[in-house]
Amino acid sequence: MQNFSYQQLFDFTKNILLKIGCSELHAQQGAEVLLSADMRGVDSHGVARLSGYVRLWEKGRINSNPNIRITHETPSTAVVDGDGGLGLVVAPYAMNVAIEKASKAGTGWVSVKNSNHYGIAGYHAMMALEHDMIGISLTNASPLVSPTFSKERLLGTNPISVAIPAKEEPPFVADMATTTAANGKLEILQRKGNPAPMGWVQDKEGKPTTSSNGVKDGGALLPLGGDREHGSHKGYALGSIVDIFSAVLSGANYGPWVPPFVAFLEPDPNPVGEGIGHFFGAMRVDAFRPADEFKSHMDNWIKRFRSAETTPGNDRVLIPGDPERELEAIRAKEGIPLLDPVVKDLTSLGEKFGIRML
Amino acid sequence: MQNFSYQQLFDFTKNILLKIGCSELHAQQGAEVLLSADMRGVDSHGVARLSGYVRLWEKGRINSNPNIRITHETPSTAVVDGDGGLGLVVAPYAMNVAIEKASKAGTGWVSVKNSNHYGIAGYHAMMALEHDMIGISLTNASPLVSPTFSKERLLGTNPISVAIPAKEEPPFVADMATTTAANGKLEILQRKGNPAPMGWVQDKEGKPTTSSNGVKDGGALLPLGGDREHGSHKGYALGSIVDIFSAVLSGANYGPWVPPFVAFLEPDPNPVGEGIGHFFGAMRVDAFRPADEFKSHMDNWIKRFRSAETTPGNDRVLIPGDPERELEAIRAKEGIPLLDPVVKDLTSLGEKFGIRML
Repeated sequence: MQNFSYQQLFDFTKNILLKIGCSELHAQQGAEVLLSADMRGVDSHGVARLSGYVRLWEKGRINSNPNIRITHETPSTAVVDGDGGLGLVVAPYAMNVAIEKASKAGTGWVSVKNSNHYGIAGYHAMMALEHDMIGISLTNASPLVSPTFSKERLLGTNPISVAIPAKEEPPFVADMATTTAANGKLEILQRKGNPAPMGWVQDKEGKPTTSSNGVKDGGALLPLGGDREHGSHKGYALGSIVDIFSAVLSGANYGPWVPPFVAFLEPDPNPVGEGIGHFFGAMRVDAFRPADEFKSHMDNWIKRFRSAETTPGNDRVLIPGDPERELEAIRAKEGIPLLDPVVKDLTSLGEKFGIRML
Repeated sequence: MQNFSYQQLFDFTKNILLKIGCSELHAQQGAEVLLSADMRGVDSHGVARLSGYVRLWEKGRINSNPNIRITHETPSTAVVDGDGGLGLVVAPYAMNVAIEKASKAGTGWVSVKNSNHYGIAGYHAMMALEHDMIGISLTNASPLVSPTFSKERLLGTNPISVAIPAKEEPPFVADMATTTAANGKLEILQRKGNPAPMGWVQDKEGKPTTSSNGVKDGGALLPLGGDREHGSHKGYALGSIVDIFSAVLSGANYGPWVPPFVAFLEPDPNPVGEGIGHFFGAMRVDAFRPADEFKSHMDNWIKRFRSAETTPGNDRVLIPGDPERELEAIRAKEGIPLLDPVVKDLTSLGEKFGIRML
């Protein structure tokens, strides 16, 4: 484990993105999105993924100089074609379209096709906050998840993020996979050789398992709920809604057709759409009630929940976004810890492009 | 157990609603919403609740002749004041506003204050389908649910419904409480004296319990996920989002301030808003891509998921909405079965107003 400053990793990431042909603006934007994951503790979606993006570019599956554009629109909606670009730059473009629509029509809703992995969902949703808007960010992803009763993997971890501004209190920021546990958490158990709790994974026969290698061995992640008795049909429905809003609305690939993030797996030769899909929403708070009034009530909501009496052994009730914000403050001071294999991977990536990691 | 035809129960319900002062139109609408729950198998939200609504009216907490109106709007949004009316009539009014907004601006989003229990969430979301729109319906409800790590009940079962049209296939209709299990399911176990699975309920000390009386005895329902390890913080976040969209955006009561449905519990003497809140969305499919193209891809999505290879012991993968639609077909033929206590309750309600149950 080694600690790096935000600036070190930001510069490194930006320089790599410039090397693969991104514009100055896109390299800057891409690095910012990627680093926001490391800062907020979603390590699986940060710089650890940089070499994965580069491998996709090497295979011609990411266009580093895309012509991102609106292909269809109404006063409150748009479809954005990402032109095969990095999701890290396509997503902020599309979220800005949603914000602009909202500033005129009250709300803006953008479905995106022909994109790639967009980093953490929360970054894009949070773009709305400074405009006194509620931000929503959804994306589909490579199929790793089996619907309730299905042996096959048909959905991605399809996250939902919703960011809601408050006044004195920090904002409410939910950012969650629609599975019981995110794949990143499973990988940590795998690395340590620890078992996974029941309800996270099923094996390749479709039977529940505690093996943290279950997904690697041909099994699947389970939808939030874990099994039918505990509401997995609800997690499955949520993941499906994310898939449909992101891809069936826009014309991207959906369900099992979503192209894999890893470069060694080939996309389906008979796609049902273009690239992967995202969905963004922005709602102007004052399209409903005065922003100041709303934000005061959000403060009241947050204070009441945060001060709730706790269950035995727990000392406080968290508000969605609390853990990530607290980690961000720590990492701003102490730097971002990277695991040795990640440092090694980035170092060799740097060598390839003549960029020093340190 | 006794079976009744749709028409019998519809007429009875409508006549009761007329007796408490509803207009012809409102009585018709209210009966339709209530009966749709019985037809779709959500028995806890159907005619079994009729006497509960009447008791609230007797207490002056439901206004049977409301002046439902838009109090604020933009091209794609509105706030509706339900004037204390039956949620069963306020909700369809607000959903129609969303649909009308969507027909002009692409999408429509309506937050509602000063309402009451609105029946099943799915009815309102499904109103969008015949317009080739996606429908969304959320509501907050009396606090019965404890956030992760909270001993206190701060949220309702706060359901999410999303209805999406297809072409040849029946529509995708998700309609779910954001808890592990709906309260209705717990009540069935209670009635039979059976325990509840772990992850559904905590006791009044905030400890997990299998007692199906746990909520009645001062405990709480648990958010989808059940415990932290299985993602209850996600169910808690979803329930919170529903609460905030429904009530903080509109100016209704939120969190622990939501007035109880049962008439024997008094609402908080210091409310933070008016009545309970709902939130509705309508998105015109062709605000994104041609409706016919979208619906063909929805057929493809549905067929692929429905034909997925199954896990051991299960013979098919369900699409959200399948079980309810199948039950509806059965009940259209065989009638609606009501439990004896429900029949007795409705009979005595009928006697009070001079309306025969049969």
